[in-house]
Amino acid sequence: MPRYKFKARPFEEVTKLILDAFDSRSSKIVVPVVDSLGYVLAEDIVSDRDLPPYDIAFYDGYAVRSEDTAGASASNPIKLKLVGRVFSEKDHGKFKVDKGCAVYVSSNSPIPEGANAIVRIEYTEEKDNEVLIKKEVDPEQDMILKGDDIRKGELILSEGRFIRPQDIALLLELGILRIRVYRKPRVGIMAIGNELLERMNRGIVYPDNYSVFIAKSLELLGAEPHHLGIVSDNIDEIKAKVLDNIHIYDMMLLVAGASIGLNDYTGRSLEEIGEVIFHGTNLSPGKVSGLVKIENKPVFLVPGHVGSAISCLYNFVYPLISKMFFDSAKLLPVVYAELTSDVDVKKGSYTFRTVALKWKDGKIYATPHIKKLGGSTLLTIFTEAQGYILVPPKTEAKKGDIIKVTLFSNMESLNIS
Amino acid sequence: MPRYKFKARPFEEVTKLILDAFDSRSSKIVVPVVDSLGYVLAEDIVSDRDLPPYDIAFYDGYAVRSEDTAGASASNPIKLKLVGRVFSEKDHGKFKVDKGCAVYVSSNSPIPEGANAIVRIEYTEEKDNEVLIKKEVDPEQDMILKGDDIRKGELILSEGRFIRPQDIALLLELGILRIRVYRKPRVGIMAIGNELLERMNRGIVYPDNYSVFIAKSLELLGAEPHHLGIVSDNIDEIKAKVLDNIHIYDMMLLVAGASIGLNDYTGRSLEEIGEVIFHGTNLSPGKVSGLVKIENKPVFLVPGHVGSAISCLYNFVYPLISKMFFDSAKLLPVVYAELTSDVDVKKGSYTFRTVALKWKDGKIYATPHIKKLGGSTLLTIFTEAQGYILVPPKTEAKKGDIIKVTLFSNMESLNIS
Repeated sequence: MPRYKFKARPFEEVTKLILDAFDSRSSKIVVPVVDSLGYVLAEDIVSDRDLPPYDIAFYDGYAVRSEDTAGASASNPIKLKLVGRVFSEKDHGKFKVDKGCAVYVSSNSPIPEGANAIVRIEYTEEKDNEVLIKKEVDPEQDMILKGDDIRKGELILSEGRFIRPQDIALLLELGILRIRVYRKPRVGIMAIGNELLERMNRGIVYPDNYSVFIAKSLELLGAEPHHLGIVSDNIDEIKAKVLDNIHIYDMMLLVAGASIGLNDYTGRSLEEIGEVIFHGTNLSPGKVSGLVKIENKPVFLVPGHVGSAISCLYNFVYPLISKMFFDSAKLLPVVYAELTSDVDVKKGSYTFRTVALKWKDGKIYATPHIKKLGGSTLLTIFTEAQGYILVPPKTEAKKGDIIKVTLFSNMESLNIS
Repeated sequence: MPRYKFKARPFEEVTKLILDAFDSRSSKIVVPVVDSLGYVLAEDIVSDRDLPPYDIAFYDGYAVRSEDTAGASASNPIKLKLVGRVFSEKDHGKFKVDKGCAVYVSSNSPIPEGANAIVRIEYTEEKDNEVLIKKEVDPEQDMILKGDDIRKGELILSEGRFIRPQDIALLLELGILRIRVYRKPRVGIMAIGNELLERMNRGIVYPDNYSVFIAKSLELLGAEPHHLGIVSDNIDEIKAKVLDNIHIYDMMLLVAGASIGLNDYTGRSLEEIGEVIFHGTNLSPGKVSGLVKIENKPVFLVPGHVGSAISCLYNFVYPLISKMFFDSAKLLPVVYAELTSDVDVKKGSYTFRTVALKWKDGKIYATPHIKKLGGSTLLTIFTEAQGYILVPPKTEAKKGDIIKVTLFSNMESLNIS
């Protein structure tokens, strides 16, 4: 059987090829605001009202005319006539504060017409129908003015942001109960390799644990991964399994079998049923990554070493997911850190290296993982790291340099000690 | 009716009172590793084996004795006798590499006895039962040695960390299928206030949106919040609702009604059925926060202003949740940022302020929110921020200072632009 050949293309060209090969297919779904936590917002939200809708009291106390409190103190209290009580917005417009008068207001309640300040309850004493004011207050003191928080027509949340608890609270405050968010893309993941099946037959429950790694990473990215199991190194079986599933998913990943070894059938299987967008590039690790367009959907060839697999995932799969399904929203956190040692770059390649991050004296430091085989092999380069760097060819990354680090997911921010 | 009185205690004392009032009640549950994403690990994981379990090949190629390749090059290939093929661990021990011999090995497969290096497939040519070696290789070249990744007895994951995709992959690699994690605490949240019920009656669907804010925040913290609806300002009703629910939850939060206004019944309701741990402190905003022990469980009085409510949540509720249910694990990300302006601190108080974070030129900057009423009132101080700072009394926080910022949740790391 002839060896399968692939053509390595420059990384920049590959990146462009990937993004050019597929248009955006984001689909926007409507969800209840209270169920929208963690979704990516798919519309700009503009306020249709002022918030607060009228002047409100910041504390429990008495709404007064500030000029009526001039000179008031504990030793020299000023007496005002109590003309009503406002407990909530229901009481809006019920009372008026004339000269020499006061109205009790509970916090967050509307301030009656005529009043221009609040005297906090601690500085008052109520007796019969009178209030003793024991402190002078300035105009607008302890008031929140109409529109102080948000003005009508103001952009309050932008398309492309992740929806957080406080965003939900604000949307509900504005009476917005449903919003448009991006539907999570469904990604089908298949592991390929007889050796995986053999290990399974020998009682190993998850021989395809790298596929589980990928699936869980995609879950944190905001995709909906489905794990489709293991397929043997058989061209017909690989083709059949892909064609059986491609209509169900927005994207597929075939893990392992993408190198040029005698056992690698994935590449040649897929070129028979689709258009090869690229196969091979100067990314290290991740050199034998590939992408095939099948029935107009992306099917990635993800190399089988864990370092190469995850490099392919972050450098090729994630950018395409962002473009196709989230209108290019930023899906991963970024930090800028100082390198604690030189990075062992691979000449002529884009070098992908994991880094461990640490705060010290107000600065953030990145320690690149140095394993003798260039960091492509072993799981500990990921369990001991929080993010990765990508160093272009002909570029050095030396101790002391400030470098951009992409976190593997937002969960990693918890581990930067 | 007499005004309810509370006694403000110093913040440090309150913090100690809260943590001393309740012992740890963490409960550890066993979950399948593949379903453990995002849980907090409740045990140390030690490897029971070396990884890899034997020397393996890093690339597809030929296992050889490096001394047999001395002087080999493309123009001067050295011929070795092909004595077998290793495709997976199933073939472990099947072959032996004697002087002048080679065995084909696919990547990640065990290296046969006698061999001490791998020649990558690109530097070889196979003909009949012979292999032409076109490159000299060093001892251990392109091999991963037994135990290179992990040694038997090594601590690989520590108790208290959040379980990430790569941790799952490593656990499965070690044959670990189930692990102990902390059960999520169940937190019951009730909103209190006639004004909320009135707003609901007027057709506002979520008048208690601050409770939704708190519930969603707790969800991101790793708790299981249950929203119990709105209770009126009625002492008997509040008591009954708390006593009805307290046996179901690990903790309860009563939102609003914790200040000293005429309408605030929460404090006096709870002192009749439990032991007041504290009520009132020099935290600003959040002064009227409180905690009552009822049937040996914590019931927090969460003030009704959004700033005060969230200040109470982060300063008092979260630390107690961490102590009681996660054996004091760190549940929130921290960054150290440079202040872009002076913080308007409240004299004599611990000042809680939200900050907006931005990366610029490799440094992270924090802009404190300055609203005229000290940042306690409005939702935008949260929607425009990613975290908070806490400034102790008699401390200044000035432009240019490096200050510790706690992110509201790990999701915030996505928004630091």
